[in-house]
Amino acid sequence: MTDTIVSSATKEVVIGFDRPFCVIGERINPTGRKLLAAEMAAGDYSRVQADTLAQVEAGAHMLDVNAGIPLADEPKILAESIQLVQSLTDVPLSIDSSIVEALEAGLAVYQGKPLVNSVTGEEERLEAVLPLIKKYGAAVVAISNDETGISEDPDVRYDVAKKIVERAADFGIPAADIVVDPLIMPVGALGQAGRSALRLIGRLRNELGVNTTCGASNVSFGLPNRHGMNAAFLSMAIGAGMTSAIMNPLHAEEMTGVMGADVMMGHDPDCRRWIKKFREPAAEGAEGARGGRERRRRRA
Amino acid sequence: MTDTIVSSATKEVVIGFDRPFCVIGERINPTGRKLLAAEMAAGDYSRVQADTLAQVEAGAHMLDVNAGIPLADEPKILAESIQLVQSLTDVPLSIDSSIVEALEAGLAVYQGKPLVNSVTGEEERLEAVLPLIKKYGAAVVAISNDETGISEDPDVRYDVAKKIVERAADFGIPAADIVVDPLIMPVGALGQAGRSALRLIGRLRNELGVNTTCGASNVSFGLPNRHGMNAAFLSMAIGAGMTSAIMNPLHAEEMTGVMGADVMMGHDPDCRRWIKKFREPAAEGAEGARGGRERRRRRA
Repeated sequence: MTDTIVSSATKEVVIGFDRPFCVIGERINPTGRKLLAAEMAAGDYSRVQADTLAQVEAGAHMLDVNAGIPLADEPKILAESIQLVQSLTDVPLSIDSSIVEALEAGLAVYQGKPLVNSVTGEEERLEAVLPLIKKYGAAVVAISNDETGISEDPDVRYDVAKKIVERAADFGIPAADIVVDPLIMPVGALGQAGRSALRLIGRLRNELGVNTTCGASNVSFGLPNRHGMNAAFLSMAIGAGMTSAIMNPLHAEEMTGVMGADVMMGHDPDCRRWIKKFREPAAEGAEGARGGRERRRRRA
Repeated sequence: MTDTIVSSATKEVVIGFDRPFCVIGERINPTGRKLLAAEMAAGDYSRVQADTLAQVEAGAHMLDVNAGIPLADEPKILAESIQLVQSLTDVPLSIDSSIVEALEAGLAVYQGKPLVNSVTGEEERLEAVLPLIKKYGAAVVAISNDETGISEDPDVRYDVAKKIVERAADFGIPAADIVVDPLIMPVGALGQAGRSALRLIGRLRNELGVNTTCGASNVSFGLPNRHGMNAAFLSMAIGAGMTSAIMNPLHAEEMTGVMGADVMMGHDPDCRRWIKKFREPAAEGAEGARGGRERRRRRA
């Protein structure tokens, strides 16, 4: 029953075992988006603004903000982006950087309790990031790799996550403020990646008692029909206990997989969000027709 | 590691824990299809023929055949339908009727080892159907309701399934020849139906050691975007351990949910079936472009 509470100045979001799945919008990230990178580096945040509004409109519960641009002043750009995004929306943010100075610059301007993305099991990262998490009272994404890299053995990744939770405790950071990313590998490259990931997600929830997240689209890397695969993965991961993902909320198939899984888990009372999202006058007529053809194979 | 083996005269299909999910095509069923019912009653099987070919083409591994038409000679029509379908395809069949005489007529003409759909936990049905299963060496769908109806309590449904397995053993029928239908309720009517079903599927697999099936579309009854909900349910049910479903293989979303789940479970080696299904020249270009935009948020 672990709840990870994050907030903006005016809004609280809970990532938790008995909560609707938390969709963390991934779009504000210049990695692989040359145009966005050039604009952000030049101080033009118009696309950041558009991505903010579009993702919240599409149903994101949180937004990840990354300003990782080679040779740019990342701390400054990340802090400015965060201030802009917080002026546009009340959803809590994930402050995303591999540079500790950028994380600190973001934390210094952030209003509320953010999620910091991320710390790993590497000694140097633990020592640099955990004091910041404690200082600012933030929550943190813990990525289950360490100096030896990313193990293909899910039990090793579990042990790394456990080590991070223990080290965080030494800094006075509770396990509820740690959201573990078990590192989902592409199923196209590693045949057992899916099954391993689902089992690891279950262990992290049931044994370590932590919330989980992941970069959902990694699972389908290199395959055709990535949206279909991502949707199947998200539904199954939620069934296995995953409680959030960093993903693109503009993709309808993935969001349908998430929302359907929320219904299946009993996290969408009376299917209200599902019905609100999908019921339209035209669709209602079509559904009525389908309902009339319902197969009545169960006989009294 | 339970394998339920069914067959036609020339082809074997295995429903099993470590096998690709078994899609049992549901279309050859006049319930709620007035035109098909009228044609079948008049001895016109042209639509049965079309449904056979279309479902196998769409990827069904087995076909359910039902001839439940009020006031018609169901045993005769079922037997004729089975003979026709077996002349058109080599996929094994599920012989579907609530009338024992119809099941027997179907069994008498069937070539191979069919699945019989179904027996319930009702005393009268157990006594009537199980001897037939033994006599013909068939496998059987066991529906987890009894004289008291369908319990909303999944533990009661588990107990009914267990009772059927035990009674079958008394008749010399092994548990491997029993495929339990845990009865999936509509999530729109019962908020906890999804979660209950997933837990029950897991218990049936892990504790009772049986294969499972269900009428998958029941889960979304009364909701908009039924295909999206069915797909999420199927992916999650496969993740929880379900090994087959009676469903419409012509629906692309549901089949994508099944095939994606097979990949995630490690039951589609090298994603061969997924790639074959979804890779097209046009799609390849699009995928390449998407791959190029892949977010590289994991830094070495």
